[in-house]
This record gives sequence, C-alpha cells and structure tokens, in this order.
Amino acid sequence: MKHIVSCLVENKPGVLARISTLFAARGYNIDSLAVGETDDPTVSRMTIVVRGDEKILEQVEKQLNKLVDVIKVWEYSSVEHIERDLALLKVSADKKNRSEIIQIVDIFRADIVDVSHNTVTIQITGDEEKIKAFIDLVKPYGIKELVRTGVVAIARE
Amino acid sequence: MKHIVSCLVENKPGVLARISTLFAARGYNIDSLAVGETDDPTVSRMTIVVRGDEKILEQVEKQLNKLVDVIKVWEYSSVEHIERDLALLKVSADKKNRSEIIQIVDIFRADIVDVSHNTVTIQITGDEEKIKAFIDLVKPYGIKELVRTGVVAIARE
Repeated sequence: MKHIVSCLVENKPGVLARISTLFAARGYNIDSLAVGETDDPTVSRMTIVVRGDEKILEQVEKQLNKLVDVIKVWEYSSVEHIERDLALLKVSADKKNRSEIIQIVDIFRADIVDVSHNTVTIQITGDEEKIKAFIDLVKPYGIKELVRTGVVAIARE
Repeated sequence: MKHIVSCLVENKPGVLARISTLFAARGYNIDSLAVGETDDPTVSRMTIVVRGDEKILEQVEKQLNKLVDVIKVWEYSSVEHIERDLALLKVSADKKNRSEIIQIVDIFRADIVDVSHNTVTIQITGDEEKIKAFIDLVKPYGIKELVRTGVVAIARE
C-alpha cells in the first residue's frame, strides 16, 4: 500500500541523512521524496512516498518522532487530501508529429516550456495517476529526458 | 552560490541515505531535494539544490561518481536550463479578502485547488524567485500551511 508521510524538520545539515537512513535500515525503498523550505526558513518540510507494510511504517514513524531534529510527523492515508507531482519531460518531436503532441499536452492541461527543431519540453502537474497516464501517452514519441519532483500533499479543509 | 546538482541513481533502498550522508559529511546543507522515478522504473533521478563553495562541491560530485549506485552526476550552473518548483499553500481567507487573494492568484497564473469557509488552498509552479514573490504577497493574509517540492531542472535544447 502507498503511504504519504510528511515531516516538519529543523533545516540543518544531516537531518535528511538521518531520516533516509532510518527508512533504509528497515528495507523501505522510498518511491519519492521532496524536501523544501517552508515560510519559516529554520524549518523544512519533507514529503516521503513509500509502499509497504503498515506495521513497519508505524515503527518508522515512532522512530522519526524520536529524532531530535524532527518537529512533527504525520501520514495522509486516512485523510482527505490534495496530492501534486510535477514532471518536466523532453520528448522527441519533429514538424510531422509536433501537432499530435501539442494535442495531448492541451488535453492534459500541461504546458510546453521549450521547443527545438527535434524536441519539445513539457511541464505537467497533477496526481501520480495523471502524470503516469501522460507519460504513457507520449512514450511512443520517445522520451529523451524526464525529471519529477515527487509527490507533495496538503489536507483538505 | 546556488548549485543545482542532478543524479541518476539505481532505484534501491539506501541510495538516498548514502548520498545525503555524503553532503552532510561536508557540512553542506541541502536547500531542497527532489527524487522521483524516471521512465525506467529501475532508475530514479535526484535534483539537489545546495549553496556553498564551488571547490567543495566538485569534491562532493567526485565522491558521488564513486558510489556504486550512482549512474551519472551533472550540474546546471553553466548550462541554460528550465527550473521548476511547485508549492501548495493553505492561506487564511474569509468572504472579505477572498477576492483580493484570487486577484494575486490570477496574476501569478496560480490555481486555487480547494476552498473552505476560512481558507483557500493554492497551487503555484515556477522558478524559485516567482514562488518566493508569491509567498511574500500572500503572507500578510496568514499562511496556515506550506509545502514545496523543491526545484527540478532540465537543460534547454
């Protein structure tokens, strides 16, 4: 099962290393991890997506809470929330098939952020399923490069 | 100076821990880190933003290249590139000031993704400066929650 774990942590060297070591020690592979600043520059927020056993995850959460630089840990499985991922894709495109690709981009409300003679670079945001569906559709044209931020989440009010 | 470092790595438990330990050992604080899947499920791509001395960074890059699970490392400082960060913000908003906030959202081409009686949740994408400017503008209304993916980058063709 997929779990989205959020942590508020002190913005200090070594915190990310300690947290990722904790997951690795339990054999938990991290599907995606995004860490960025909050509106308080001394605090960072991490969003970690893992798949695996719920009981082991509970243990990991308990251990995270014991780390001195961890301010708060919570999980989104049972909470109504908004989930977003951002991908940048460089896709092969020539004069012949460029308009086909633009059509797919429009349907997904994605954006073309760069064009060259033989590529288009596309930005897309959405939940994991949307991004997966988009990647599957443009794959036949040839994906030259793909980078994703990983998921971030926020609870609905 | 700000550096954007990209790594292609094997998608295995422990890789993130080893890489973040390497930065921490040099006293490098990571401003943001985003790691997600690529179109090849066995390979993940990491984008790391750090600020600091160029010579030490060169050493870190060399050490990264020596790690067995690291496929490729490169840096964007001297390369024309596109940079994107995504933020979700929950901002206090009542009937009185909601239209003011919507105005700012429109100017920045951001999106409102959730509304309640006393909050709006906003999604914004762009480079770091754009997101910083937006955060500064909505801060006076009261930011209840803020999560960012951190920067990802792709070279222009």
